[in-house]
Amino acid sequence: MLRVGIIGATGMVGQRYISLLQGHPWFTVTAVAASASSAGVPYEQSVKGRWQMIEPIPEGVQNLVVLEAINVEAMAKACDFVFSAVEMPDKEMVKKLEESYAAAGLPVVSNASAHRWTTDVPMLIPEINADHTKMIDAQKKKRGWSRGFIAVKPNCSIQSFLTPIHALRAAGYDIDRLAVTTMQAVSGAGYPGVASLDMIDNIVPYIGGEEEKTEKEPLKILGQIKKEAFVLADDITITAQCNRVPVTDGHTACVSMGFAKKKPTREEILKIWRAFVSVPQKLQLPSAPLTPIIYLDEDNRPQPKKDRNREQGMAVSVGRLRECPVFDFKFVGLSHNTIRGAAGGGILNAELLVKQGYISA
Amino acid sequence: MLRVGIIGATGMVGQRYISLLQGHPWFTVTAVAASASSAGVPYEQSVKGRWQMIEPIPEGVQNLVVLEAINVEAMAKACDFVFSAVEMPDKEMVKKLEESYAAAGLPVVSNASAHRWTTDVPMLIPEINADHTKMIDAQKKKRGWSRGFIAVKPNCSIQSFLTPIHALRAAGYDIDRLAVTTMQAVSGAGYPGVASLDMIDNIVPYIGGEEEKTEKEPLKILGQIKKEAFVLADDITITAQCNRVPVTDGHTACVSMGFAKKKPTREEILKIWRAFVSVPQKLQLPSAPLTPIIYLDEDNRPQPKKDRNREQGMAVSVGRLRECPVFDFKFVGLSHNTIRGAAGGGILNAELLVKQGYISA
Amino acid sequence: MLRVGIIGATGMVGQRYISLLQGHPWFTVTAVAASASSAGVPYEQSVKGRWQMIEPIPEGVQNLVVLEAINVEAMAKACDFVFSAVEMPDKEMVKKLEESYAAAGLPVVSNASAHRWTTDVPMLIPEINADHTKMIDAQKKKRGWSRGFIAVKPNCSIQSFLTPIHALRAAGYDIDRLAVTTMQAVSGAGYPGVASLDMIDNIVPYIGGEEEKTEKEPLKILGQIKKEAFVLADDITITAQCNRVPVTDGHTACVSMGFAKKKPTREEILKIWRAFVSVPQKLQLPSAPLTPIIYLDEDNRPQPKKDRNREQGMAVSVGRLRECPVFDFKFVGLSHNTIRGAAGGGILNAELLVKQGYISA
Amino acid sequence: MLRVGIIGATGMVGQRYISLLQGHPWFTVTAVAASASSAGVPYEQSVKGRWQMIEPIPEGVQNLVVLEAINVEAMAKACDFVFSAVEMPDKEMVKKLEESYAAAGLPVVSNASAHRWTTDVPMLIPEINADHTKMIDAQKKKRGWSRGFIAVKPNCSIQSFLTPIHALRAAGYDIDRLAVTTMQAVSGAGYPGVASLDMIDNIVPYIGGEEEKTEKEPLKILGQIKKEAFVLADDITITAQCNRVPVTDGHTACVSMGFAKKKPTREEILKIWRAFVSVPQKLQLPSAPLTPIIYLDEDNRPQPKKDRNREQGMAVSVGRLRECPVFDFKFVGLSHNTIRGAAGGGILNAELLVKQGYISA
Repeated sequence: MLRVGIIGATGMVGQRYISLLQGHPWFTVTAVAASASSAGVPYEQSVKGRWQMIEPIPEGVQNLVVLEAINVEAMAKACDFVFSAVEMPDKEMVKKLEESYAAAGLPVVSNASAHRWTTDVPMLIPEINADHTKMIDAQKKKRGWSRGFIAVKPNCSIQSFLTPIHALRAAGYDIDRLAVTTMQAVSGAGYPGVASLDMIDNIVPYIGGEEEKTEKEPLKILGQIKKEAFVLADDITITAQCNRVPVTDGHTACVSMGFAKKKPTREEILKIWRAFVSVPQKLQLPSAPLTPIIYLDEDNRPQPKKDRNREQGMAVSVGRLRECPVFDFKFVGLSHNTIRGAAGGGILNAELLVKQGYISA
Repeated sequence: MLRVGIIGATGMVGQRYISLLQGHPWFTVTAVAASASSAGVPYEQSVKGRWQMIEPIPEGVQNLVVLEAINVEAMAKACDFVFSAVEMPDKEMVKKLEESYAAAGLPVVSNASAHRWTTDVPMLIPEINADHTKMIDAQKKKRGWSRGFIAVKPNCSIQSFLTPIHALRAAGYDIDRLAVTTMQAVSGAGYPGVASLDMIDNIVPYIGGEEEKTEKEPLKILGQIKKEAFVLADDITITAQCNRVPVTDGHTACVSMGFAKKKPTREEILKIWRAFVSVPQKLQLPSAPLTPIIYLDEDNRPQPKKDRNREQGMAVSVGRLRECPVFDFKFVGLSHNTIRGAAGGGILNAELLVKQGYISA
Repeated sequence: MLRVGIIGATGMVGQRYISLLQGHPWFTVTAVAASASSAGVPYEQSVKGRWQMIEPIPEGVQNLVVLEAINVEAMAKACDFVFSAVEMPDKEMVKKLEESYAAAGLPVVSNASAHRWTTDVPMLIPEINADHTKMIDAQKKKRGWSRGFIAVKPNCSIQSFLTPIHALRAAGYDIDRLAVTTMQAVSGAGYPGVASLDMIDNIVPYIGGEEEKTEKEPLKILGQIKKEAFVLADDITITAQCNRVPVTDGHTACVSMGFAKKKPTREEILKIWRAFVSVPQKLQLPSAPLTPIIYLDEDNRPQPKKDRNREQGMAVSVGRLRECPVFDFKFVGLSHNTIRGAAGGGILNAELLVKQGYISA
Repeated sequence: MLRVGIIGATGMVGQRYISLLQGHPWFTVTAVAASASSAGVPYEQSVKGRWQMIEPIPEGVQNLVVLEAINVEAMAKACDFVFSAVEMPDKEMVKKLEESYAAAGLPVVSNASAHRWTTDVPMLIPEINADHTKMIDAQKKKRGWSRGFIAVKPNCSIQSFLTPIHALRAAGYDIDRLAVTTMQAVSGAGYPGVASLDMIDNIVPYIGGEEEKTEKEPLKILGQIKKEAFVLADDITITAQCNRVPVTDGHTACVSMGFAKKKPTREEILKIWRAFVSVPQKLQLPSAPLTPIIYLDEDNRPQPKKDRNREQGMAVSVGRLRECPVFDFKFVGLSHNTIRGAAGGGILNAELLVKQGYISA
C-alpha cells in the first residue's frame, strides 16, 4: 500500500478524495493537511459541520491530526505522494506550495489550476493523453528533482465532452470546431459556494474563468510533446458558454462538432464511442471505468440525477447524437464533476503514474 | 372597448391572457371557452385548484360561464375577436377549430402551433415582421372570409434571441448562422406539466419538438412576402439544443452568431441594440415595451428571476456580449416565456392588428 | 428461493420493489403484473421512459412479460407470494383484487391503504408489532383461506417517528400525546405526481388524506390483539400537519411528545434509542437495519439528502432531542419514504412472515 | 417629507428598505450607512453584484455616498430618523451603535435583535401592541434623551402566526398554548446566506437561535406595560420547531392552539379573523394592509409563492383551520419575511410613530 497525503483536505474536493479513497486497493490516506486555521486538531473536528459527503468520514481518517500545508517536512515523512486539492485564491502561492512538495521528494497529483499551464507539467486525462506523463522526466531533469514531480488534471467542465471528442479524433475523424454550452452543478464551487438565493427559481449564465478554461485546456490535452515541449493542438477551435444550474453534482454539456474533412455517419460515431477503451482500461487501473463512454438511447438522457453515478461516477454519459444544421453533429455529454471531474480523476491519474513507475513506495 | 374571447381559457396560457388583460385599455374579456369537460360552469369554478397566476382571477371574468370551444356561434355573438390558447394534441383539430372561428367572422390571434406553417397565415413578432400582416388580405380573399382571419405567434423559445438578431440584420449586418442552447422554464409545459421528480437536483436535456421549432420558425419570421406567398429567409442557418431547467418562468438562450460579410464591433452591436425600437414602439401599442432590447452590463446577467419581468415581461434582456472563437460573437438572451413568449406576445399581435385595421368592433 | 410476484409493478413503489429485490438472499422476482394498459409486453418496454430508479432495471426482470393484475390464476402459477403496490383510486377494487389473490392461495404483502382498517388484517412495522401477525390465523380461519392471506404496512409518513415513540413506550415511558408536523418528499406522490410548478420556490401545506392516516394508523399499530380482534391504543392522541416540500426522497417529522406519568431525562431517552433493537434485528432478517434508530448529535440533523440512505434506507434517523415548553420533549425524525416507508418496509414484513412460517415455498 | 437614514443599507434588509421606500408618501431616503468596508462610495457602487431586489436601485439612492455607520454626526445632519438594519454579530456593539444614534437625537426604528429584550425598548407589531410605544416616554426620561429613542420589531418567524393569535385573544378567547413548526425562506439568512448545496433536494431542520426567539418574543409583544415596565404575558406557552426550506421569500407556520377556558367554534374564529382590523388600519397608515389577516378557503393554501405578496407583502395569509385532536384548533399561517417580517414591518412601525408624534421633522 502506498501512503497518501491530501493537501487541502478539508475542502469539498479534499473530502471527496478521502471518501473515494476508502477501501482503495493501492492507496491509504496517512496524512491530511490544510491551512493553519484548520490544522492541529483531528480531521473529524476540523470538518465538523462542514463534511459534505453522504458517507461518513472513514474511520482511519477521523483521528488523523490535520497538519499545516506548509509543513512539507512533516508531510514528506508521513506519505509517499500527495493529492493537492488546494483552493487558495493566490495562484502563485499554490504553485510554490506544490513545488515545495515536489522538491521535498513527493510526487504531487494536483487538482489545482495553478500549474496547468506550466510548460513542463502534464495535464492528464488518462483515456486521452496517458503518454504526456513522459514530460515528467524532463520536468525532473530541469528542476533537479529526483523523486518528486507535479502532474495536474484539467478543469471539471471539460470532462463531460472531451473524451468522446478524442475518441472520434483518434479514429481518424478530424473534429476541428466545437460549440459547447455547459450547465454546471453547484458543487463545482465548493461549500458554501453558490448562494441558495441564486439557485432557487433561477440559473446564472456565468462562472468566472470557466469559459476560458473550457476553451483552452483541451488544446494542451489534445496536443503533443515534441522535443520535451508541449505543442498545443492547433487543428481545433472551441467556444464555450458556461452556466450554473440548480443541480448538486453533474456537469452537462450541449455540444456541436464540425469535422475538417472526412465526416462519419451517425452509426460510425456510435460504434466508435461504444467500442472506445483506452490506456486506463487496458492497464486495468482500479478506478478506471469499464466503459468510459456510455451512450444512452433514450431521447431525454443523459440527466444529472440519473446518470452522474454510472461507473462509480467515472464514466462520461452521452446521448442525443443527431445531425447539426450548422456544424455536422450535436450531442449531450455528462460527467460527475467532483468524481470524474475532480477527485476521481486525480486518483485515476495517480494510478496511471503508479503503473508507469513514476510513483512508488 | 373591443370584446375579447379566449379559447382554451382554463389552461396556463389562457390564464395568463385573462390575468394580463385585466385593465387593458382596448380589450375586455367577455367570453371564455374550453373543452366540454370544463364548460358550463362559471370560470372561477372551472379553474378551482388549477389557477396558477399570482394575481387572483379578475372580477369581471370570475363569473363568466365557460362556453364549449366548439360552440363557435355563441362565441361569435359574445366577442369581436378571439385569442386561441388551445392545447389539444391533435393539430388537425386545432386547425379546423381556428378556421371555424375565422369563417364565423372572428379574427383569431393564436398561440397554438397548428397554423404556424399554413401558407397564408402570418407568424408575427411585431418588432420584426409587422408587415407580414398583409398576408391576411390574401388569406381572406383565398378563403372567402370577410372579417375573420388567423394570425399566429411563434414558439416561446425563439423570443429570447430573435429580436436582437433581427436588430443587427436590420442594421445591415448579415448574420448567417446561429448556435443556440436554451434553458427553458417549466411553465412552458403548462400545468401540471413537468414532474417535480424531474426538476429537483436535475435538468432534462430534451423538450419534444422544441429544437425543430427553434431552428425553423425564425426562417419564416425573418422571411419576406413575395407574390402573396412567404419566402423563407435562406441566408441564415440555426442549430438549437433545448433543455428544461428548474425555473418557473423565463427562457434563457446562450447564442453564438456568425456574420456573412461585414462584421460589426462589439460597440456597434451594443449601440444598435440599445437604440433599437420598431413598429410597436412607434405605434405606441399599449403592451409594447419602451425598450424592447435591454442590455445588462453585469457579468452574470440576464438571470430568469431577476430579469424576466422587465418591461412587464415584454422586453428581451441581453447580456454577456463577447467575441466567439468559432463564430464571431456570443451572448445570452432572456425573455418571459408566458408573457413575451405567449400571452403578452399574443396581445401585442392583437394590438398591432387593431392599429392596422384588421381587427375592429 | 421464494418466487415473488409484484402487483402494480410499473408504478413508483413497484419499481422500488424490483430495484430493492435485486440480489435478495431469499426472494426472486418471477412475475410482474399491472393494469391492462401496461400488460402484454416485456417489463422493460412497459416502463420505457417511466423507470425512475437510479439503478437500471435488473436483468432478470427486464424481459418478464407484464401480466394483467386481474389474471390471478397466471400469477398464482408464477409465484409463491405477492407484493401489492397497486395504486388504483377505487379502494373497493383494490380490496377485492387483493382478496382474490389471497383466495387463490397467495400471501399478499401490501403497501396499499385499502385493507389497513380491515378488522382481521394486521398493519405491520416489524420493530413495533411483529406479534400482530398472529391475526393472520384468525383471518385465514374466518375467510376459509388455507395458504393465502393479507398483511399490510402503514402510511409512509409515520415511519419517521413511530419507532422512536414505540421504543420509549416499550421502555415504560407512557407517551400519551404527540404533535407532528411532516415535511414530505415528492416521491410519495408517485410519478409524475407533484407538478414542478408547485415545488419551485414553494411548499404546499396539504397532502390529501395524509393527516388522517398519520393520526389514526399508529393507534392500530400500537394497539393489541384481544380475542382475535384489534384493540386500538387508547392511551395516545396524535395531531398531524403534513406538508409537501421540494425533496425527492425522505420524509422529515418535527415531533413534540408528552408523557402521561413518568417522564424520562434526555439522557435516558438517548440511551433507550441508542440501545433499541427489536424482532427484525434479533431474527437477523436480511433487510433489517442493524441500528433501527440512529441518533445524530449535530445541531442541524437529520437532513433528507444526507441521512435518508442510512442502513440502506431502512433506519430512522433522529436528532435535536430537547425539552419542549408545552409538551415534555421534542425531536426531529427522518426516514426514506420509498424504502423504509414503502417497498423496503414491505420486504421486511415479508421476511418476518417467512421467518414466522406464514410464507413458504 | 421626513428624511430617512438607513444603517446597514447594503445588506438584504437594508436593500429591501430602500426598495420599499421608493415612492413612500411620508419618507424619503436621504442617507445610507454601512460598515467601513462599504463606505465612501456611491450606494450603487457599494452594492455592485450584491443588489438582490428584483426592482432596480431607486434613482434617488443610487448616488448617495455611503457613510460609515459609526459616523453618527454626519447621519444626524442628513436625516430625521433612521432605520437600523445592522447585521453585526456582536450584539453589544449593535446596542451601543443604536444608542449612540438615539443619544444624537435620532429616533431609531430597528430590525436588529440586539435591543429586543432591553427593558425600556418596545418590540412592536402595530396590529397587536401599538400602545407599547408609550414606553418610549419612560425610555427618553430614563436615558435623558430629548428627541431620540429606540423601538424595535420582533423576529420574522413570528409574524406568520401571532396576529391571528392576538385577534382571537383580543376577542376574548384565551389561547394559552401554541405548538408552532415553521418552514422558513432562505432570504431570512441574508445574502449569500444559506448555501445552495444545503437547499437542493434538502431541508435543514435547524436555524440558530430562531426557536428561542419564536417562543419568547411573543410574550413581550402580548404583554402589558405596568408602572413603566413590561410585564410578559404569563398566560401563554409556545413551543417552536424552525426549519429552513428551499423557498426564496415567505415563512410558513403550522400552528396548533389550545384555549384555556372558552373555546370558539370554527365559524367564530373565521368571523373574528375576517373582521379583524386594528390601529394601523384605523389610522390609515400608508403601509398598513387593508386586510391584515386574509383567510384562504382552498385546501392547499397558503403557499409561499402564491400568497406572500398579498397586500404588498404586508398581510398574514391563513388557511386550513380545522380541529386539532391534541389542542383545540390548528391552522397554517404565512407572511413575507423580508417585507412584513422585516423592512415592511419596520416602515409600518415608523408610520405609527409618526402618527403618534414620536417622530417628526
